[in-house]
Amino acid sequence: MNFKIENKFENARSASFTTAHGEIKTPTFMPVGTRASVKTLSFNELNDINAQIILSNTYHLYLRPGNKLIKEMGGLHKWINWKKPILTDSGGFQVFSLAKNSRPIKNTSIKSEVKIEENGVEFKSHLDGSKHYFTPEFAMQIQHDLGADIIMAFDECADAKSTKEYFIKAMERTHNWALRSKLEHDRLNSKQETPQLLFGIVQGGIFKDLRIESAKHINSLNFDGNAIGGLSVGESKEEMYEMLDHVIPHLSEEKPRYLMGVGTPEDIFEAIERGVDMLDCVHPTRMARHGAFWDKLGRHNIKNEKFKKDENPLMENCSCFSCKNHSRSYIRHLILEGEILGLKLLSIHNLNFLIKLTEEICSSINEGKFATFKKNFFNNFEKWLHI
Amino acid sequence: MNFKIENKFENARSASFTTAHGEIKTPTFMPVGTRASVKTLSFNELNDINAQIILSNTYHLYLRPGNKLIKEMGGLHKWINWKKPILTDSGGFQVFSLAKNSRPIKNTSIKSEVKIEENGVEFKSHLDGSKHYFTPEFAMQIQHDLGADIIMAFDECADAKSTKEYFIKAMERTHNWALRSKLEHDRLNSKQETPQLLFGIVQGGIFKDLRIESAKHINSLNFDGNAIGGLSVGESKEEMYEMLDHVIPHLSEEKPRYLMGVGTPEDIFEAIERGVDMLDCVHPTRMARHGAFWDKLGRHNIKNEKFKKDENPLMENCSCFSCKNHSRSYIRHLILEGEILGLKLLSIHNLNFLIKLTEEICSSINEGKFATFKKNFFNNFEKWLHI
Repeated sequence: MNFKIENKFENARSASFTTAHGEIKTPTFMPVGTRASVKTLSFNELNDINAQIILSNTYHLYLRPGNKLIKEMGGLHKWINWKKPILTDSGGFQVFSLAKNSRPIKNTSIKSEVKIEENGVEFKSHLDGSKHYFTPEFAMQIQHDLGADIIMAFDECADAKSTKEYFIKAMERTHNWALRSKLEHDRLNSKQETPQLLFGIVQGGIFKDLRIESAKHINSLNFDGNAIGGLSVGESKEEMYEMLDHVIPHLSEEKPRYLMGVGTPEDIFEAIERGVDMLDCVHPTRMARHGAFWDKLGRHNIKNEKFKKDENPLMENCSCFSCKNHSRSYIRHLILEGEILGLKLLSIHNLNFLIKLTEEICSSINEGKFATFKKNFFNNFEKWLHI
Repeated sequence: MNFKIENKFENARSASFTTAHGEIKTPTFMPVGTRASVKTLSFNELNDINAQIILSNTYHLYLRPGNKLIKEMGGLHKWINWKKPILTDSGGFQVFSLAKNSRPIKNTSIKSEVKIEENGVEFKSHLDGSKHYFTPEFAMQIQHDLGADIIMAFDECADAKSTKEYFIKAMERTHNWALRSKLEHDRLNSKQETPQLLFGIVQGGIFKDLRIESAKHINSLNFDGNAIGGLSVGESKEEMYEMLDHVIPHLSEEKPRYLMGVGTPEDIFEAIERGVDMLDCVHPTRMARHGAFWDKLGRHNIKNEKFKKDENPLMENCSCFSCKNHSRSYIRHLILEGEILGLKLLSIHNLNFLIKLTEEICSSINEGKFATFKKNFFNNFEKWLHI
């Protein structure tokens, strides 16, 4: 793992590392393509907004179309025609949230259930109620079939409402599974022409002692990178930032740190400031589906009457396709009419906003101006704590 | 109107004419953007498939966002950022179909009703049940506000199940309205810097005598072009082709002929063979929403199990973005998962298929090979008469 730190500003750092499909410069925001498609965008549009790496999801792709099919088609990169790096999540988060919380399966009364054992997790598909069993080893095998550049250890993301006692159990299980993930990954990687990188995941809820214990343990297993999971799941922003403060000092300086599932402008600043290098979130594309977008002042909703005759782009001086070509007035019309083009234009803008913001943060670190840049940004930008 | 015929093959012809936003080469297939957006495509994607002209709809844009708003925004071209020609339908067809057949307005028991008088048509919006009144003069005023290069006379498209007696009445009303449309258009055009072209519309159902009478009458009013309306509304293919045989000899050779709302490969061949120059249809984008696409063998549905591991493009040697970049296997996955990217990839392919087919037909006319080209095409292509 050739993680090269270029510059530091206190705990924030700019860096780069190499994957099988090219270099990634950090800090970086990674668009999410859960079902092997970043919602509404084609790969050329992702290239246009300078997406360096995209995410996809093991749980979803395992269920449909199946990892074996994707392997047969030459792996995820070839199948979706994306030539740059891909990261796959292990499926843990989805098994514990989607499968558990899903509504009864369509046309049946079957409700998904999750049975957690030391060996692995039995769950019912949220699609058809069929039974499946994931182990750390199996999660690695699936991710090796998919062939992403960066893959994730199988972990248990405990429900935020669990007791501390349960969080301890879940963390210990996560640690065991981390080791088993690593062993299976090493075995599979040694047989592969193109090696994949494996990241471990720190858990521990919002308990300082557990987070520190988990960070130390995961760090000791010597993964290619370290991720922080189980945040942005209902706790307050302050609690999340505090957990980062506890965790990050125990994660190697020499490896990328990935904060999972987080992606609002304020969270990106706060996380990078504390030493995070990579972030992902479905938020920018989900916001688009609600008609929402960011500009330098904060978050707005394009459906607002005030944009009806607004000839301006979504954001002044924005480099994205949507802003270079279309007005708020037209995009508002598209969204109100339910036209798919409107969703695409907002998705492009919101993703570009976070990617460019992260690039600017990177530059500010390189120029020793992170603190000023952050201050100036939030002079204008109205924070909104509830998504 | 400088309509220049380049070549003829019996009744089929290749030609060109100039509009305020550039030249149109015919025969041409025109993508439909009912609500000011060709479903799922942005303008760069329309340029990539060589769309020469796109359609939009007076009825829809009048209701939302309103023609006055679009005029205030600088007209339709500027508002949607499309630099090539646009054609707007008059709203007649929609008033008589959408408004009449619409389900009760959401959350109310109001059902749209249409009252047809000599002066014009009262109808209730299919959106909110609000009352509106269209006259030929008003339809012209709206279309002059929108500012399309080609606009359409206001006509009555009678229900296919009407009696011949009613078709006679509707035709006579259409003829009166055609004249009133022309007078109002001439008045408005004389005040405009950028003149718009007005096309008249032939009606008459599937009655030979009415179609001939209507063709002669509309032709005598000296519009910039002549359109044939009220076909592809439930009659058989044979009836439609027969009506074209009756109508076309009475429409000036020196002007473009536009067959409205028609767009399957076989209809395009049959219409151009009879002397039609322009066609439009929502069919290629609607097909995409059903998962359907064309290749050289005919129509297929991407959801079919047989495409699961198919690494081929939708169609061999196809020039479109979807075929140059993605496999049937991946597009099938996207459609099955409800991913919007799948809709876009199929829409691009289907529109490109018809546009390229029409371009090839044009070349075959220029090279004196239309009959051979048609024969060869249908040697492979399986006709399907029911959409």
